Amino acid sequence: MRILIIHGPNLNLLGRREPGVYGVQTLPQIDAQLQELAEKMNVELKIAQFNSEGEIISFIGDNADWADGIVINPAAYTHTSVAIRDAIAAVELPTVEVHLSNVFGREEFRHFSYISPVATGVICGFGAGSYVLALEAIVRTINMSDRN
Amino acid sequence: MRILIIHGPNLNLLGRREPGVYGVQTLPQIDAQLQELAEKMNVELKIAQFNSEGEIISFIGDNADWADGIVINPAAYTHTSVAIRDAIAAVELPTVEVHLSNVFGREEFRHFSYISPVATGVICGFGAGSYVLALEAIVRTINMSDRN
Amino acid sequence: MRILIIHGPNLNLLGRREPGVYGVQTLPQIDAQLQELAEKMNVELKIAQFNSEGEIISFIGDNADWADGIVINPAAYTHTSVAIRDAIAAVELPTVEVHLSNVFGREEFRHFSYISPVATGVICGFGAGSYVLALEAIVRTINMSDRN
Amino acid sequence: MRILIIHGPNLNLLGRREPGVYGVQTLPQIDAQLQELAEKMNVELKIAQFNSEGEIISFIGDNADWADGIVINPAAYTHTSVAIRDAIAAVELPTVEVHLSNVFGREEFRHFSYISPVATGVICGFGAGSYVLALEAIVRTINMSDRN
Amino acid sequence: MRILIIHGPNLNLLGRREPGVYGVQTLPQIDAQLQELAEKMNVELKIAQFNSEGEIISFIGDNADWADGIVINPAAYTHTSVAIRDAIAAVELPTVEVHLSNVFGREEFRHFSYISPVATGVICGFGAGSYVLALEAIVRTINMSDRN
Amino acid sequence: MRILIIHGPNLNLLGRREPGVYGVQTLPQIDAQLQELAEKMNVELKIAQFNSEGEIISFIGDNADWADGIVINPAAYTHTSVAIRDAIAAVELPTVEVHLSNVFGREEFRHFSYISPVATGVICGFGAGSYVLALEAIVRTINMSDRN
Amino acid sequence: MRILIIHGPNLNLLGRREPGVYGVQTLPQIDAQLQELAEKMNVELKIAQFNSEGEIISFIGDNADWADGIVINPAAYTHTSVAIRDAIAAVELPTVEVHLSNVFGREEFRHFSYISPVATGVICGFGAGSYVLALEAIVRTINMSDRN
Amino acid sequence: MRILIIHGPNLNLLGRREPGVYGVQTLPQIDAQLQELAEKMNVELKIAQFNSEGEIISFIGDNADWADGIVINPAAYTHTSVAIRDAIAAVELPTVEVHLSNVFGREEFRHFSYISPVATGVICGFGAGSYVLALEAIVRTINMSDRN
Amino acid sequence: MRILIIHGPNLNLLGRREPGVYGVQTLPQIDAQLQELAEKMNVELKIAQFNSEGEIISFIGDNADWADGIVINPAAYTHTSVAIRDAIAAVELPTVEVHLSNVFGREEFRHFSYISPVATGVICGFGAGSYVLALEAIVRTINMSDRN
Amino acid sequence: MRILIIHGPNLNLLGRREPGVYGVQTLPQIDAQLQELAEKMNVELKIAQFNSEGEIISFIGDNADWADGIVINPAAYTHTSVAIRDAIAAVELPTVEVHLSNVFGREEFRHFSYISPVATGVICGFGAGSYVLALEAIVRTINMSDRN
Amino acid sequence: MRILIIHGPNLNLLGRREPGVYGVQTLPQIDAQLQELAEKMNVELKIAQFNSEGEIISFIGDNADWADGIVINPAAYTHTSVAIRDAIAAVELPTVEVHLSNVFGREEFRHFSYISPVATGVICGFGAGSYVLALEAIVRTINMSDRN
Amino acid sequence: MRILIIHGPNLNLLGRREPGVYGVQTLPQIDAQLQELAEKMNVELKIAQFNSEGEIISFIGDNADWADGIVINPAAYTHTSVAIRDAIAAVELPTVEVHLSNVFGREEFRHFSYISPVATGVICGFGAGSYVLALEAIVRTINMSDRN
Repeated sequence: MRILIIHGPNLNLLGRREPGVYGVQTLPQIDAQLQELAEKMNVELKIAQFNSEGEIISFIGDNADWADGIVINPAAYTHTSVAIRDAIAAVELPTVEVHLSNVFGREEFRHFSYISPVATGVICGFGAGSYVLALEAIVRTINMSDRN
Repeated sequence: MRILIIHGPNLNLLGRREPGVYGVQTLPQIDAQLQELAEKMNVELKIAQFNSEGEIISFIGDNADWADGIVINPAAYTHTSVAIRDAIAAVELPTVEVHLSNVFGREEFRHFSYISPVATGVICGFGAGSYVLALEAIVRTINMSDRN
Repeated sequence: MRILIIHGPNLNLLGRREPGVYGVQTLPQIDAQLQELAEKMNVELKIAQFNSEGEIISFIGDNADWADGIVINPAAYTHTSVAIRDAIAAVELPTVEVHLSNVFGREEFRHFSYISPVATGVICGFGAGSYVLALEAIVRTINMSDRN
Repeated sequence: MRILIIHGPNLNLLGRREPGVYGVQTLPQIDAQLQELAEKMNVELKIAQFNSEGEIISFIGDNADWADGIVINPAAYTHTSVAIRDAIAAVELPTVEVHLSNVFGREEFRHFSYISPVATGVICGFGAGSYVLALEAIVRTINMSDRN
Repeated sequence: MRILIIHGPNLNLLGRREPGVYGVQTLPQIDAQLQELAEKMNVELKIAQFNSEGEIISFIGDNADWADGIVINPAAYTHTSVAIRDAIAAVELPTVEVHLSNVFGREEFRHFSYISPVATGVICGFGAGSYVLALEAIVRTINMSDRN
Repeated sequence: MRILIIHGPNLNLLGRREPGVYGVQTLPQIDAQLQELAEKMNVELKIAQFNSEGEIISFIGDNADWADGIVINPAAYTHTSVAIRDAIAAVELPTVEVHLSNVFGREEFRHFSYISPVATGVICGFGAGSYVLALEAIVRTINMSDRN
Repeated sequence: MRILIIHGPNLNLLGRREPGVYGVQTLPQIDAQLQELAEKMNVELKIAQFNSEGEIISFIGDNADWADGIVINPAAYTHTSVAIRDAIAAVELPTVEVHLSNVFGREEFRHFSYISPVATGVICGFGAGSYVLALEAIVRTINMSDRN
Repeated sequence: MRILIIHGPNLNLLGRREPGVYGVQTLPQIDAQLQELAEKMNVELKIAQFNSEGEIISFIGDNADWADGIVINPAAYTHTSVAIRDAIAAVELPTVEVHLSNVFGREEFRHFSYISPVATGVICGFGAGSYVLALEAIVRTINMSDRN
Repeated sequence: MRILIIHGPNLNLLGRREPGVYGVQTLPQIDAQLQELAEKMNVELKIAQFNSEGEIISFIGDNADWADGIVINPAAYTHTSVAIRDAIAAVELPTVEVHLSNVFGREEFRHFSYISPVATGVICGFGAGSYVLALEAIVRTINMSDRN
Repeated sequence: MRILIIHGPNLNLLGRREPGVYGVQTLPQIDAQLQELAEKMNVELKIAQFNSEGEIISFIGDNADWADGIVINPAAYTHTSVAIRDAIAAVELPTVEVHLSNVFGREEFRHFSYISPVATGVICGFGAGSYVLALEAIVRTINMSDRN
Repeated sequence: MRILIIHGPNLNLLGRREPGVYGVQTLPQIDAQLQELAEKMNVELKIAQFNSEGEIISFIGDNADWADGIVINPAAYTHTSVAIRDAIAAVELPTVEVHLSNVFGREEFRHFSYISPVATGVICGFGAGSYVLALEAIVRTINMSDRN
Repeated sequence: MRILIIHGPNLNLLGRREPGVYGVQTLPQIDAQLQELAEKMNVELKIAQFNSEGEIISFIGDNADWADGIVINPAAYTHTSVAIRDAIAAVELPTVEVHLSNVFGREEFRHFSYISPVATGVICGFGAGSYVLALEAIVRTINMSDRN
């Protein structure tokens, strides 16, 4: 089983950026944690962080045949990117949308997501734990649809 | 560790009710699955299903001292109940909001939740799996805050 | 043929409550009129009035196997209850939504109904006559779908 | 007792037009059914179908003295015609608004009616049966107000 | 003179629940204070707290003949309950709407009240003092209308 | 100087139609009054009433070369007709919009006019007097632009 | 017959201020024209211009007993002053709202008037001529109501 | 204890102005009633009525050091004045907002208050009694905060 | 292949009407150009211009069996006519919506089209060229669906 | 004559991506078809596809002097990119906006285009044929403006 | 060069009023700083603070011939005063709008300004420094337009 | 002191692009002017122009430790980029938002800025002068916070 893990804009600043909101862990620390879990579950990960909307789109399109599922934290692009939504809809892969913070407890404009309607499901509010839960969720989802 | 699992209105009809949207598992089957997982994690559960908004409120208030955390699927009350929101805010316990379906892919009025802003986090779209992930998430959340 | 007749909140006050808006007939008088008509049409009725949203939901769910159709006047819950909507959608029975007054000639917030989109049809504005027409309508609807 | 039956725009295409939405009966078939029922109830009907908003207005104004009540399916003009609303308000006759389909289960713009607030009542969702119920409703309404 | 005092959902948690917002007094303490004042004013009180919307409706309807006026803190139902509004309008008794906190200084959705338009007046923002002022206000209102 | 006087839908019912709102004068009485005034001012009138939007449009287009100005009471079409607006804009004649009633004191939807932005000016609320003032206004407007 | 003529804020700048929008006549020239017309109609005028909302309110209240009617150009306060609206409603005098320009052809926020719903009628778009027509209109309105 | 009592625009017309809405008492009568009550409570009042928004602002700013609290009926300025809101916020005194009528039962635009979010509390709907209750409320509020 | 070409209201004024917006060509000139092109493509045209919404509806319904496709410039009715939309949906023919001007660069209300969602496609902004492109487009569309 | 053909984000996936919506042709196939047509019309094309908003902006700016016109399918950026709109406005070249699908028959958010108001015209709904028509349209537009 | 410096309502309270938002400097201190800078730049200032909207309007109109430019902090009137906007537009002088605080980081209603669209430019968020920058900006703007 | 100067999309076209709106100066000319001023103020600048949102984000993040403050003209991204907002909030540096034109006098969608709430202040409307004022403002801001 092969999963894309996509981190959106500004997530390279994790740990430095408003730790009260996003936690103190850095992105490499989170990635290591995910790799470890993936190995336990016998899953192969391809992990990338992008600040550019266009690069996220290309990454999704280019890996459409490689991947069995996507875990994506679209960060700020969650609320503004029709193009990433279209990319996810185009490749027709199970997709879990992830957020570190509980976006529904923040500014009004963060309550809306272009991505959610084309995702399989959404997990938010558990800090780095959101990614861990999402990895379990995507594996569970792919296994489920394999069974059918 | 003691957790409330609260199922909202109409969830007693699970399995019968629009299986294309909500899956074929019945509520007792989901509850059994959660009990099994809880035992593995050494967690005590108190599970209940209510069709009445007022009973959910009373259940939360009455168990405020017993519980360490709440997993709640407010179902239809998600979108209309300020009173359940106030109950959750009042007891100040870590709370995970859960939905079987991906509410963001359904009718517009299901995109809004009165509960989310006072919850710790939200998990939706993974069928019965949403509950399993939520139980892991609440345990993880309580452990985390215990450490601090 | 077996039909549920459900009267929503405050309808127990009929006759007393704003007679200029709702008419002078009491609920027992309306129920008697419906029973008489039902006998003529060889239809069995189960009639109930509830002030609680949760009790309406339970009543619908509990009678899902008994009933062939529903006539419901959701009264104030028309405009606020996603949960009753979900109950009706869940049991997948022909349903007629009824109002004594012409809700479209009253306050703006009474123009919107959560129930209408999941009902077979809507009848409003004819006082107690709305119920009589609704009983004919539900029988006609069930007969029609039986023929197909 | 004399009743106007007014069919709005495109209803001449009934049977041909989207039968999944509007049913397979043609307008002449519906009219024949109404005439038969009217004779049983000793009611005289004047039936007409118009594609033009102006012709509907003139028909209402010209028959204001002849008629005791109006049954109108304003079709598409339901949602856009202040002028037909004004015509109905001007002649001050009991009026039943009728729709073949359940307009509340269709596009958002079909949920609003300029006609409803000046009508006595509304019946929708029962196909050709909506007209039959409406004829009964208008007769019942006129009889009621005659008694007072 | 006989007055209903109705406390809405979650008010049983007073003192425990967000004391920064709602104050440190418990509900029994407030009730005792009101009873004392009522005795001084020679007024009989019937006091109740309900978490269920339906029970509030029934309580109002059942006491319609007993009571001369109503003091109600609808709490969260203020913003969502058409049914309680209809109950108050139905019994046609002078009614004072009360809130402990200044709802206009809180979340946007708390600025709207379904109850206010059918109440005689509104008092909010004075903690437990809101109830005291409301009791004086309802007595004053009943005395006034008695004089006319 | 030659002026079109255009009466919109339902104005043929004047005197009969809601006299509390529109006054007791009939349309022929108003027209006679205008003709008399026009003769005094040495102005030629062409007066017509139409229930059909299309006929109003054709009347404006067909008389574009004959007329020096337009006085129009678009009645219900005020609020819904882009087509009449376009006709007035197309012929580029001074135009006075007239209403018998004060539309701003009536239903919300009557506060908006598609016609006003392409008219020279608006006069409303003076019953039949609105037409008299409008005739003076259009003559004054044409004289003014002739002088420049 | 005694009429108040009230000019709102910035109208003292007439002639200087955006002549393309408001014309080249100064306020004293318009006032002279109105005085001349008033004498012909045997009407007494009290004319004043105010930049302050409060002074307009006081002027209306102080002259409530003196005046038989009001002609007011509220200028910018048209769109923002509930207080002037209340003053006009309080004195219960026939009132004509006047604008030099056609406000409906300008910025969106100028399309709304707090004053119009409490005025007898509205006249706009005829430059200084708007005042002349308004004076005729108010006299006509007062004469009419005197006759009844 | 020293309290400012501020009456907003048009309140000088009380008794004359729409008595069905505002009652028959004049402002001097209300002020006398308040003075009498103030003496009983050993409170010094400074009472003023203003039609001008600017004068209200100056009055608040100029008395910031003299006063211990404010009772203000902002009347029409309630709905339009950010400047009075800012004045109240600036002086940081306990403030009770008062209305004679129940503003929530009137026009939509009267439901919104710029003042309420910066006030301690709101009292409306009890006619002149609103002021009496407000005086008690402000004294109670000041005493309370003195105790802390 | 047989195509309906339908010109909406006011298009008879082309060349005269605001040439800066709509161009200098008259409607007969455009029609001649289309006829010439149609002959080259071996297509039969039926061309008509209507000012009346009802006539457009009838024309579509009456030619439903004759035509293989529709090119329609609904002009002002684009933004207001549900009835023309319903006519097009009813006859289930490929339909191209055409506009001379770029409607998206004009007034806000011209950005919305009731017709577009039931059309095959939309072409606007190329003056008379829009019709030429639309004729090519409809032929291409019909050929395409014939092939399938 | 030299034309830019710009394909927006995800169009590289054509053929693969939701063929029910976008058709089965690949982008190279469409480009070949356009090149062939361009040669017939003696037009030089520069064709490019970009997933990045910034690259589209740079491509437009960099080719501003080379190109005589632009054909652009902004895809998802249609609905979100002010920056591409500004680029098109800046270079002041005739521009045709193209869409494969009829965007007006899809999700609400696809009905709005930032690009349309600054384009010469819009063509949508004809699959690959939209591009062919657009190429004809841009050539026609440039020829037209050359003649003036 | 002669510049008006206008301080809006409540700015007389500077230093006292919410220093966390508006800073600790008093208005006389700011004025002194501006006078000093003005002398350096050889500019004459006329400085005034007003709590009354009407006085600001009169001040602008009365100094229209004296001044070469305006620096105005409209404070609360920014968001509510069409009349000050009209005054600024009327005198046609270069105008800089100034705010001490960053209004866009405060309440929603402070994000809208009636003044900005008629101003030359806007400067906000730099405390007293906003005025200093504004004085430089207005001088720079006047010099620029003098050169043309 | 070290300052980032960031120019957003399309600003490379300055001088060429709509000079009526943006002025005739090119970007290199503005940059030279800023360098000259910076040297006078003993400030080091790092200046860059980007068409890509992602590159702006990376530039901010990469220079977070180098810079003491940011002057940014986000151009079109002002109105659409949550991601740039998040980058600015993340690095927690004083930031001045700059616009050449007065955005509040242009299209509605340019009145909203995602950036302003996280900026220290905003300066717009002074052409290239906006940058000069912004450089002064950022230096003043940094000096101020250094002093505290």
